[in-house]
Amino acid sequence: MGADQKNTIMDYDTVSLDEEQNAVVIIDQTLLPQTRKLISLKTAQEIWEAIYFLKVRGAPAIGVAAAYGIYVLTAGMPQDSFGEFYREFQRQKEYLDSARPTAVNLSWALNRMEQVCLAGRGLPVAEIRRRLREEAVSIQREDIEVCRAIGEFGLKLVKPGDGILTHCNAGKLAASRYGTATAPIYLGQERGYAFRVFADETRPLLQGARLTAYELCQSGVDVTLICDNMSALVMKKGWVNAVFVGCDRVAANGDAANKIGTSLAAAAARLYGVPFYVCAPTSTIDMATPTGEEIVIEERPAREVTDLWYTHSMAPKEVKVFNPAFDVTDHTLISGIVTEYGVVRAPYKEGFEKIFAAKQNGEKPGRQIL
Amino acid sequence: MGADQKNTIMDYDTVSLDEEQNAVVIIDQTLLPQTRKLISLKTAQEIWEAIYFLKVRGAPAIGVAAAYGIYVLTAGMPQDSFGEFYREFQRQKEYLDSARPTAVNLSWALNRMEQVCLAGRGLPVAEIRRRLREEAVSIQREDIEVCRAIGEFGLKLVKPGDGILTHCNAGKLAASRYGTATAPIYLGQERGYAFRVFADETRPLLQGARLTAYELCQSGVDVTLICDNMSALVMKKGWVNAVFVGCDRVAANGDAANKIGTSLAAAAARLYGVPFYVCAPTSTIDMATPTGEEIVIEERPAREVTDLWYTHSMAPKEVKVFNPAFDVTDHTLISGIVTEYGVVRAPYKEGFEKIFAAKQNGEKPGRQIL
Repeated sequence: MGADQKNTIMDYDTVSLDEEQNAVVIIDQTLLPQTRKLISLKTAQEIWEAIYFLKVRGAPAIGVAAAYGIYVLTAGMPQDSFGEFYREFQRQKEYLDSARPTAVNLSWALNRMEQVCLAGRGLPVAEIRRRLREEAVSIQREDIEVCRAIGEFGLKLVKPGDGILTHCNAGKLAASRYGTATAPIYLGQERGYAFRVFADETRPLLQGARLTAYELCQSGVDVTLICDNMSALVMKKGWVNAVFVGCDRVAANGDAANKIGTSLAAAAARLYGVPFYVCAPTSTIDMATPTGEEIVIEERPAREVTDLWYTHSMAPKEVKVFNPAFDVTDHTLISGIVTEYGVVRAPYKEGFEKIFAAKQNGEKPGRQIL
Repeated sequence: MGADQKNTIMDYDTVSLDEEQNAVVIIDQTLLPQTRKLISLKTAQEIWEAIYFLKVRGAPAIGVAAAYGIYVLTAGMPQDSFGEFYREFQRQKEYLDSARPTAVNLSWALNRMEQVCLAGRGLPVAEIRRRLREEAVSIQREDIEVCRAIGEFGLKLVKPGDGILTHCNAGKLAASRYGTATAPIYLGQERGYAFRVFADETRPLLQGARLTAYELCQSGVDVTLICDNMSALVMKKGWVNAVFVGCDRVAANGDAANKIGTSLAAAAARLYGVPFYVCAPTSTIDMATPTGEEIVIEERPAREVTDLWYTHSMAPKEVKVFNPAFDVTDHTLISGIVTEYGVVRAPYKEGFEKIFAAKQNGEKPGRQIL
């Protein structure tokens, strides 16, 4: 698929591989909702910047973009010696991995690619590259299956007509086809569930207003945009039956890092007795991180808060700003973590271990383990 | 004072009367922080629009502006007959009162002015107008005393070096001199308390970023701007020792209406054990409103959320928007209500009754009743 424009985001995936051009093709999400523009990423710097500047964002989509990205870059690596090829592969992998620290999928996808590389030691580089391409395609295909499975399990947690609140964008722009937090919404819509969705606008970068509201409107879902600070009021009014959010990294104890403001919505949900669900592909569950305390939280430039799109200053120039991109929602505030193998409830570590054991045994997404 | 520009907001009050021009002079708060412009309001429509479009905002400041405003308008009313004068007075009073429904100070100030009018029945209109001018000046003078007293009582709730979070602007731009929620901060600063203040930016109109951050920076207070959705994180980090917010109307049971998002900050404060104080001049306590349920919550145009300053669209055109300007914080989430007669704690109704009885007996602001 070339970098042309199409009418809706339903037509293609948020991230794709253009083999003719040897490029990763993405929708530039920083331009939505006003402009829908596909851009081709060919160099390491282009790929790094697309991730850093959030042209592609959302943990699963970042993973897919990085996998296709490192594959695209292998074309320019030394082809004659595995040693030289692998050294360059590692260098580029580290560079891409540095674009964002919080989402585990970035390093998870790059590690999967590296494993394929290492397993191919002794084979011609051309064959390794063929396998890397296959692996990247698998990562995206699996993401689609995983999102669909999350949708199926999530859908059982709500009923037709329910009000659902979501924060940030964990939709089809953040993951493949169904999204994660939006998967129950899209699947429900296919089945006539007629949800009423509330989308937090998600300051400072407004992923909820620009992306979630956009993709749900495009898909004909009944969506109402609110400012982040209105979530307590809509819950108090009884308009919200469940909260579904995505996540960037889940610790072994169930603490979940997601877009800044998620933990505040969780505090409100707790107060008003609204179930709070985190939709997490197992690729975002990081058993090597014991608790949320150990998750590195990315801080971003002050101007994201003080200057909208760097065009219009909204605060005094001299003011200090704290701009964390994520926060950690304590596992005690989470009603359940919806994975592609079912809904995990506390104690989370045990549930995760069962799921990873089943996955190790080759169980497919959608198979209910818990 | 004319409509010239001065260097800081410390030089003059947010609202003042220009007797030469027969005008209410205000800082146009919609232009802050980039532009500091004083504007003169002479007609009923100008006054109404200044309130409706938030050029002057904050419950106490609205009350002062309305009192000066109705006085300014009396110059154009029939001067020969009390009946005709009073009929016109009532008409303009009702018109001004329609500008915003939630803040009780608007109708409270206009009612005080009407009482002066009625008490003057039989006197020459010129004398009634002199008394109305005096009443409006008193309303502002009392506001200054009240804010200072709130500051004194509030200051006892914190200690030097504390972190204080505030939402929206209940500062000197919203009330006279000290503000309400900011009064403990400014008084503390005079006494070398060195607070670290966190200002919620306060979507959609960013009164926190534009006004609170501005006035605190101008005054040399250590202030850090955050997005509304970051309050839970700064509390979790232990950076906040107390929350101080203003209010637009307090019901007899202690439920408090304030800028949208206040109740969400209160939910986070409850979760993290941070004391949550509402700073409320007794003029904002409405014993005729039994609970928050009966407080009318103003809804404002969708474009405030979707289009920043109507210049830059940040959401798809077709999306539905819910844009309430206020929410009600349940009295169970409030640690104390700081009035000019002391800190009221649950059960609120009893405390309010004692305070109103003392006020009736002529006790002055600053005298501790509770």
